[in-house]
Amino acid sequence: MKRIALGIQYDGQAWQGYQTQPGGHTVQDQLEAAMLRFATVPLATTCAGRTDAGVHGLGQVVHFDTDLTREIHGWVRGINAFLPPSIGVRWAKELHEVDGGFHDGREFHARFSARSRTYHYLLYNNAIRSPLLAGRAGFCHRPLDVERMRAAVPALIGEHDFSAFRAASCQAKTPVKLMHEIGVERHGELIVFTLRASAFLHHMVRNLVGALVYIGSGRQEPEWLGQLLVSKNRSLAAPTFMPDGLYLADIEYDAKWGLPREGARALPWF
Amino acid sequence: MKRIALGIQYDGQAWQGYQTQPGGHTVQDQLEAAMLRFATVPLATTCAGRTDAGVHGLGQVVHFDTDLTREIHGWVRGINAFLPPSIGVRWAKELHEVDGGFHDGREFHARFSARSRTYHYLLYNNAIRSPLLAGRAGFCHRPLDVERMRAAVPALIGEHDFSAFRAASCQAKTPVKLMHEIGVERHGELIVFTLRASAFLHHMVRNLVGALVYIGSGRQEPEWLGQLLVSKNRSLAAPTFMPDGLYLADIEYDAKWGLPREGARALPWF
Repeated sequence: MKRIALGIQYDGQAWQGYQTQPGGHTVQDQLEAAMLRFATVPLATTCAGRTDAGVHGLGQVVHFDTDLTREIHGWVRGINAFLPPSIGVRWAKELHEVDGGFHDGREFHARFSARSRTYHYLLYNNAIRSPLLAGRAGFCHRPLDVERMRAAVPALIGEHDFSAFRAASCQAKTPVKLMHEIGVERHGELIVFTLRASAFLHHMVRNLVGALVYIGSGRQEPEWLGQLLVSKNRSLAAPTFMPDGLYLADIEYDAKWGLPREGARALPWF
Repeated sequence: MKRIALGIQYDGQAWQGYQTQPGGHTVQDQLEAAMLRFATVPLATTCAGRTDAGVHGLGQVVHFDTDLTREIHGWVRGINAFLPPSIGVRWAKELHEVDGGFHDGREFHARFSARSRTYHYLLYNNAIRSPLLAGRAGFCHRPLDVERMRAAVPALIGEHDFSAFRAASCQAKTPVKLMHEIGVERHGELIVFTLRASAFLHHMVRNLVGALVYIGSGRQEPEWLGQLLVSKNRSLAAPTFMPDGLYLADIEYDAKWGLPREGARALPWF
């Protein structure tokens, strides 16, 4: 059996999240249905990071194992032919032979080999909403001060218990994650938040963006973010921000696997 | 009666074009229905430029006449409250009193006062399609040479009979239009065509982009575009390009009207 990795992109608006569900209206269901039509045998995929309903994928990575022999670009073109326009395979890479055993750290695994994940959150900051960015960016009509938000961010960098930003539904084994960097950049009326961490708790980015918006609008001081973190108390934090602006942008792996990293670049329309 | 102008934006994917149709699935139908709910009386609108199904609006302008007294920003917020997310009013401006008579050139008229129209065509140029740009950009998988396309463009500048790029369905009184400028810019994998003319024939931008793609891909030489123009023969030209990448970007009026020109800036996500 060969292990093959695929790079996947999707517009999350039409889908009930990444992970398979009985109704079939998820990205994984659509992907595996397209793979079945192309390969004519069922192929089970494992993804790097599940995303919620309405969240977009720029750099999602999945792997699957197969005995089939196909030209590697044939996987990209062949699966794309059976996918809806809002989901696409961007690249495919054949990695190595697998014996079907459990993950031992030497094999590539889309989830367990990932060293860090990067999300973008795109926020439209204007008095009037933007129809062209509906479903593609969060929206805040109050003026936001990017410098105030930047001043709050250092308190989150490093290894912390992020329980204050964790959804009740979160199934992670531990709330302790290593936050590598948080960028806050303004491009005209758009603010782009970029967060890179070892992993993220459920709703963690959307909860952090909600808290940063409270700070950017002047409702809370920059020091409040660090206080929230040490409180470990979700009930003190700001509301979860809408999924519309959230993009799973990049999965970082050891360079030895040689995977493309499209989503690590800026958003495709910048 | 006062004449009021509105700036309108829309994502054209969900709508059967701008102009009203019996089924009500058009931008104009949605706009006038929202205005009726806000104002509680029917208000008829006149637009600067009708757009086809799937074509987007960044700088559409409409006008209407009313006796109602509303705070001017109330028109923006009030109509937006009743519009779907993919359509929005961006600004409103009260212009002058009208007597309900015919347009005499001194009154503002969304269509007849327009001096020029500007369209963007956004084209994704990559071997693999982009799910995040589905419905929002045209797609060409062959490498395109921007310099070849630029070399073809000067033949179209000035006053010409554009019959070679006119749809059979076109209802314009004359095929003679004044082309002010055509820009071809590459932003990574995106090519942005910007066309400004006195007015456009039906499908004219999409037909011109189709011809430019033939030139950019090497299928035709740059000189071919000028030959097509003088032939006035639509059957010699390239196929009409898909509507997905087309944006009505800007309507130019005399500065005395003082209207905002949002769409004249770059696309909102650059």
